Amino acid sequence: MTTLTRRYRFASSHRLHSPKLSEEENCQTYGKCNNPWGHGHDYVLEVTVGGPVHPGTGRVVSPALLDGYVRENVLEAFDHRDMNRDIAAFAERVPTAENIAAVIRQMLERGWSSVFNGAVLHRIRIEETRRNSVELRNE
Amino acid sequence: MTTLTRRYRFASSHRLHSPKLSEEENCQTYGKCNNPWGHGHDYVLEVTVGGPVHPGTGRVVSPALLDGYVRENVLEAFDHRDMNRDIAAFAERVPTAENIAAVIRQMLERGWSSVFNGAVLHRIRIEETRRNSVELRNE
Amino acid sequence: MTTLTRRYRFASSHRLHSPKLSEEENCQTYGKCNNPWGHGHDYVLEVTVGGPVHPGTGRVVSPALLDGYVRENVLEAFDHRDMNRDIAAFAERVPTAENIAAVIRQMLERGWSSVFNGAVLHRIRIEETRRNSVELRNE
Amino acid sequence: MTTLTRRYRFASSHRLHSPKLSEEENCQTYGKCNNPWGHGHDYVLEVTVGGPVHPGTGRVVSPALLDGYVRENVLEAFDHRDMNRDIAAFAERVPTAENIAAVIRQMLERGWSSVFNGAVLHRIRIEETRRNSVELRNE
Amino acid sequence: MTTLTRRYRFASSHRLHSPKLSEEENCQTYGKCNNPWGHGHDYVLEVTVGGPVHPGTGRVVSPALLDGYVRENVLEAFDHRDMNRDIAAFAERVPTAENIAAVIRQMLERGWSSVFNGAVLHRIRIEETRRNSVELRNE
Amino acid sequence: MTTLTRRYRFASSHRLHSPKLSEEENCQTYGKCNNPWGHGHDYVLEVTVGGPVHPGTGRVVSPALLDGYVRENVLEAFDHRDMNRDIAAFAERVPTAENIAAVIRQMLERGWSSVFNGAVLHRIRIEETRRNSVELRNE
Repeated sequence: MTTLTRRYRFASSHRLHSPKLSEEENCQTYGKCNNPWGHGHDYVLEVTVGGPVHPGTGRVVSPALLDGYVRENVLEAFDHRDMNRDIAAFAERVPTAENIAAVIRQMLERGWSSVFNGAVLHRIRIEETRRNSVELRNE
Repeated sequence: MTTLTRRYRFASSHRLHSPKLSEEENCQTYGKCNNPWGHGHDYVLEVTVGGPVHPGTGRVVSPALLDGYVRENVLEAFDHRDMNRDIAAFAERVPTAENIAAVIRQMLERGWSSVFNGAVLHRIRIEETRRNSVELRNE
Repeated sequence: MTTLTRRYRFASSHRLHSPKLSEEENCQTYGKCNNPWGHGHDYVLEVTVGGPVHPGTGRVVSPALLDGYVRENVLEAFDHRDMNRDIAAFAERVPTAENIAAVIRQMLERGWSSVFNGAVLHRIRIEETRRNSVELRNE
Repeated sequence: MTTLTRRYRFASSHRLHSPKLSEEENCQTYGKCNNPWGHGHDYVLEVTVGGPVHPGTGRVVSPALLDGYVRENVLEAFDHRDMNRDIAAFAERVPTAENIAAVIRQMLERGWSSVFNGAVLHRIRIEETRRNSVELRNE
Repeated sequence: MTTLTRRYRFASSHRLHSPKLSEEENCQTYGKCNNPWGHGHDYVLEVTVGGPVHPGTGRVVSPALLDGYVRENVLEAFDHRDMNRDIAAFAERVPTAENIAAVIRQMLERGWSSVFNGAVLHRIRIEETRRNSVELRNE
Repeated sequence: MTTLTRRYRFASSHRLHSPKLSEEENCQTYGKCNNPWGHGHDYVLEVTVGGPVHPGTGRVVSPALLDGYVRENVLEAFDHRDMNRDIAAFAERVPTAENIAAVIRQMLERGWSSVFNGAVLHRIRIEETRRNSVELRNE
């Protein structure tokens, strides 16, 4: 299997605050990420697709097709948005990098097989800052 | 003159919206940066100090002293904050990279000469994203 | 004066070969950059604009206006092209980083003042590889 | 198993054009990568070798031996070359990142076992641009 | 399984010299890395932790807890130190990137299970320079 | 004037300790950089040369000539060395980034005019870590 990874960027703001924790626990758990008015990051999203290489095109998947799919299903929802208020999935879930990755996987998997036949969604990686990243693999 | 540059990072959210412009002009001027709930970036701040090298220490300025001064006067106000709501200077000014640089220069210049004798604040550079940066030089 | 720098990328191929030099001199001067079929790079282009900050918008220049101007006047000619064969200016000039910078400055200066009033073209920087870059300043 | 990854760079030009597709299909499939005179990139090649650590040297493989092997078998063929015209393997195959990775794997595997005993060729990764990379793993 | 990767940096000096090799073999094996007075690098250490995401906090592991654990068990021993003379484990082992990774894994595994319940130490990666990195996976 | 910047790397170890300061002052001034056995960094050295572009070659200076000059006069003395013990200039001067830049400027200026006619040594920049850099300009 050959894997192709495409790299995207989006700028979002968020606030880490869990309704399941008390004020004090929120403060202890998230530190300055719990500041009331939020803050923001430039997120890197890597989407890895695996499959055989088509002999005609020499490609696992059309990059233009994948880019359009990611833009429409993920980037338009996240880029230059506030996650807590603009994305329904974070009404109940804290927008940590772990949960962002899980939400993005759901967004990508929903219509995947009808668009990409043969190629699988192999890996999602979110780089929140250079120091913090999260990965989900389908293995 | 030898110049020393120290590099800092802070994560903030902001919304570009000018009270001097109509809704439509705001939308045209700032595009998706005008989205109501804001978004965020990981800003890089470079502070350049110029002066002679002290023969005893081999340094233009003590990095620890400069780091403490920048942290106290700038980073604590900006990091993990929302500029529009947490920083008074942006109540009236749009937090573009240009204005952020000007506000940071003011914050740094205020008590500068009482802390750093001989060394001047030579340059401030704000890198908002890899594609957009702003520089102010004292020349 | 505040300066704003925008960063662009383009992928081009070129061959370093001067009609003013003999085959042997070309080989000595340009080494493997003289290989007959050419090679390519991902160039970084930085365009720095200087001027006062507009009180209404908080900006030296509209980034969207500048991006469109650079795309139309420079990137469309260079990106995914072969410099020696696709760009007339390199029919007579060797496409070294130095000459690329000079050609791009001409392309940008041609209609500059009719589009950007008040803001000057302050600096052009071409990064050919991480190891090799060229800068032109208007001072 | 410990894996060691060495990172190399080469600058090449190429044109994406498949003899199995019509002119129009080529244009649709490869976009501006189909421009007649080609364009170029600075490719990053990562070669990952896996195996036990030799107690005497503290290494999986000698970096100097691996560097020489990669230079001789891959970099000399690719660096500062035009893939379509200088590398026979691309006479019939489109030089997409996927095919480049496959061709490089073949080049590396040919004489591998006679040079590196015990250490296996674990992974090849080609980074065409920051946005596009391809990986082949032996698992 | 979700994996979280945290990235750390430390600056150390070392000398590659094996007591199991003769002077000449040392020189041949390690080249200029065998220079008598040593040299140094800025190492990047990536620690990857795997496990389920806690529904309350939205995290695999508390980043603050992990950072403290890595600082106390690894960084304090390595940062701004000379490996050969300041770290006992390298009295007998050559401080190659392979051995550094193995030593750090031991340092991290020692008290791991008493601090992190449920989350496993999935991967360690040492980047000695941009050109040379080593990875250990627990699979 | 066109300026060309070439970027080099070298790995060295050093210890910050001034004979003009007491033990206690050394500890206060340099912190962990004063640790007895030293530590190391991967330094980036940028050398900027200014001058007119030669119409024949399209270059300010021959990169191969400059690279050879820098290698011979600077890199061979610094790379994979311990500054305090391998470089005479640091017997009396503390190897801070400021002093390293000054020493390198001297090394480069010594034979400059006999090798490069017309092109001036415009700028030296030392990047010790991503957070700390020093610049010397000839203006």
